[in-house]
Amino acid sequence: MSDQPSPDGSAAGPVLEHLDEAECLRLIAPGGIGRIAYTGRFDLTVLPVNYKLHEGSIYFRSAEDSLTIQDLRTGIKDADYRVAFEVDDFDESAREGWSVLVRGRAHHLDADEEQEAARLADVEPWAPGERNHFIRVVPVRVTGRRIANSA
Amino acid sequence: MSDQPSPDGSAAGPVLEHLDEAECLRLIAPGGIGRIAYTGRFDLTVLPVNYKLHEGSIYFRSAEDSLTIQDLRTGIKDADYRVAFEVDDFDESAREGWSVLVRGRAHHLDADEEQEAARLADVEPWAPGERNHFIRVVPVRVTGRRIANSA
Repeated sequence: MSDQPSPDGSAAGPVLEHLDEAECLRLIAPGGIGRIAYTGRFDLTVLPVNYKLHEGSIYFRSAEDSLTIQDLRTGIKDADYRVAFEVDDFDESAREGWSVLVRGRAHHLDADEEQEAARLADVEPWAPGERNHFIRVVPVRVTGRRIANSA
Repeated sequence: MSDQPSPDGSAAGPVLEHLDEAECLRLIAPGGIGRIAYTGRFDLTVLPVNYKLHEGSIYFRSAEDSLTIQDLRTGIKDADYRVAFEVDDFDESAREGWSVLVRGRAHHLDADEEQEAARLADVEPWAPGERNHFIRVVPVRVTGRRIANSA
């Protein structure tokens, strides 16, 4: 990408910074709204969910019978579905902000002890209905970038 | 999904509403931050961009040499890359908000007249550098949902 400083060497104007994994995890640690992305039966899908970060993994929950949950099944025991999880925060008036992209596997928490781990993570869904199925996204690759505007 | 009203028939608690295409397009019409999702060389990718809606299509721009632009090339002339574009707006304290998902093809605006159309759409990138390559996402399927909290 063309993210050189301006020709006169000043720091004026927007600056694009690539973030390391530690900074990415720090940024997404508070939890909130993130977006789960996967290739489902209706093609590429991106859906916002309420998530928590707990011991380095992302947790969210949904209804057992939802399309999302069904789509995230490989049909093979212990074979997890590859997903991406995106979180960002932008100040539209300042034209500044950051985004973090986590690639990993969507692991369904079926066993009792895993349910307990997820409850400890205290993930509250916003959507109505019984959403007692937990998914954990175990990060494999974490990348991020920040746009700062010093103009 | 389990989005029935509560047993006593009251409207208390969160309500999940599926939005029709016209309502989705109305919600994303003001432009702003959206997220382009595609399967690139580094697996599934979701990246925020500044977009405009113009004559029913989504426009954004990036640097000609960026990974995003290269990833969105099929290598076949006139064969467009399948993408998803997500826009949402949530009030985290009220636990309310909406999200819209546009599935479509990422069409590269190579011809002069297409560049002109994109300039008319007035898409301003935030990131630094020369971002004079335009992409138009022509919607094929538009879906959305809203969570309202009347509790």
